[in-house]
Amino acid sequence: MKNHWIAIDWGTTNFRAFLMQGSLQVSRINQACGLLSVEKGQFAQTLQTLLESWLEQYGNLPIVMAGMVGSQQGWHEVPYAPLPCNAADLASGTLAFTTSWGSPAWIIPGANGISQFSQPDVMRGEEVQLLGLAALHPANQHVALLPGTHSKHAQMQHGEITSFSTFMTGEVFSLLTQHSILGRALPEQLEDEQAFLLGVKTASQGAPFTHLIFSARTRRLAGELSETSIHSYLSGLTIGYELQTLPVQQHAWVVGSPALTARYQLAAGQMNLSLSQANGDDCFIHGLWHLFCQLQGTPS
Amino acid sequence: MKNHWIAIDWGTTNFRAFLMQGSLQVSRINQACGLLSVEKGQFAQTLQTLLESWLEQYGNLPIVMAGMVGSQQGWHEVPYAPLPCNAADLASGTLAFTTSWGSPAWIIPGANGISQFSQPDVMRGEEVQLLGLAALHPANQHVALLPGTHSKHAQMQHGEITSFSTFMTGEVFSLLTQHSILGRALPEQLEDEQAFLLGVKTASQGAPFTHLIFSARTRRLAGELSETSIHSYLSGLTIGYELQTLPVQQHAWVVGSPALTARYQLAAGQMNLSLSQANGDDCFIHGLWHLFCQLQGTPS
Repeated sequence: MKNHWIAIDWGTTNFRAFLMQGSLQVSRINQACGLLSVEKGQFAQTLQTLLESWLEQYGNLPIVMAGMVGSQQGWHEVPYAPLPCNAADLASGTLAFTTSWGSPAWIIPGANGISQFSQPDVMRGEEVQLLGLAALHPANQHVALLPGTHSKHAQMQHGEITSFSTFMTGEVFSLLTQHSILGRALPEQLEDEQAFLLGVKTASQGAPFTHLIFSARTRRLAGELSETSIHSYLSGLTIGYELQTLPVQQHAWVVGSPALTARYQLAAGQMNLSLSQANGDDCFIHGLWHLFCQLQGTPS
Repeated sequence: MKNHWIAIDWGTTNFRAFLMQGSLQVSRINQACGLLSVEKGQFAQTLQTLLESWLEQYGNLPIVMAGMVGSQQGWHEVPYAPLPCNAADLASGTLAFTTSWGSPAWIIPGANGISQFSQPDVMRGEEVQLLGLAALHPANQHVALLPGTHSKHAQMQHGEITSFSTFMTGEVFSLLTQHSILGRALPEQLEDEQAFLLGVKTASQGAPFTHLIFSARTRRLAGELSETSIHSYLSGLTIGYELQTLPVQQHAWVVGSPALTARYQLAAGQMNLSLSQANGDDCFIHGLWHLFCQLQGTPS
């Protein structure tokens, strides 16, 4: 059991745990056991059940957690670290405690700041991926996109997060396809790359968003868009609208699952943006390993 | 029964009928009997039931209809009139028929064109309100906002509709308050003018929409916004975002119900926009009267 520990990303809808040996991933658990599905106050019991087989095999392993588990609705609320923040700042704001079965445990704080558009902004979990990206691909400067329900666009200088902005891209796509008139009474949807790229192109022409999305209806009425391609088109519209805020000459990283980052790279290609993919799990693991070493006072 | 006729706005969710004597409204019916609530193919029966008391009293009055009743999902599909279009164009595209009980009936076509943001766009019903606005307030040029589920911004020259753009303001507000994380688990909402104006101000600073709306969450987390004022704030954000597309020096009309147009005028005041209110029902009645006279070949 030398050097074994557990890295956890516990979000609102999903739970992901990685059994680690030093900086290497040994095994993993994916469950739809996000905070919303945890019975009131039952975080310890839920976690013990989820990790049962690893704890039986390895004993009371150290557990390092990030994500919404540290929010008001989570297990223990951990105050946000204000920007700018680096690994040392996040480590010093980390909450340490011991679980009911005796594992040493830590919850990493999220980060808050003012977005590039002067709005207050928050994240929980993505700050760990950003540290991991900087560790895996060292550079003086990073611009990183972390796509998802609430996509984040972040800037880093020498491994320090200096600013970030949230875009509700994934959630807005769900609202439009599941609940709006644009998504009503559609036949089964097909993956349509041409419709996706038409959406990206349309979004990149700079129309206001609440006007732009109506084109999913009018292009369908005009016969320019098939009834089975509305989701693809709306995906292109929402991702294209998000990417439009990136400066054209700026190289950026897109960090996430291979399927999602490939989608963003396809859109970026159409918009002449330079985007490199990084695996979100790799970034998460490396970021958390980096923080775990800081917490223990050992070099990573 | 001299000069009596019936003006109808039959939309997706609502049905409004006006018993008219010439250009004057004598009585009215409001029912939540939009197209969605009409049994398959039962338009004639539904209408006869809704108008029963007027038909009994006055006989087979002429009926002039506008709105989604002329759409694919409506009673009889009437092709859109292409822009630019004036009253004569709409009259010549109107579908004439006789109802099963013997009333002469007409359905006004909607209009289609290319929006100011180069998107295909459509409307059904608002074209009648625009004609009415021009009849009630003659001018060489009109800029008009018709707020609602799908707000329209239209330009007219000498009573001719030259372009218009749709903004899904009302529908997006509903999606965000009813189905998104921003509206989840809120206490009963209060009308909060200060929160509304904060939303308007925030929207007018030019941030991308999918980023902007996240501030309804972050301002709440930061204690800048009360949990009971989220709907007011989101109303300000969505209306402010729509109004932001108006040129600052441009005088415009806002056409609709007094409650809604007052809300738009409040927002416009904060943005230094010059907006005059016009009653939506008055505009509808006058527009339809104008068209009814054209259809009969008599001066209005």
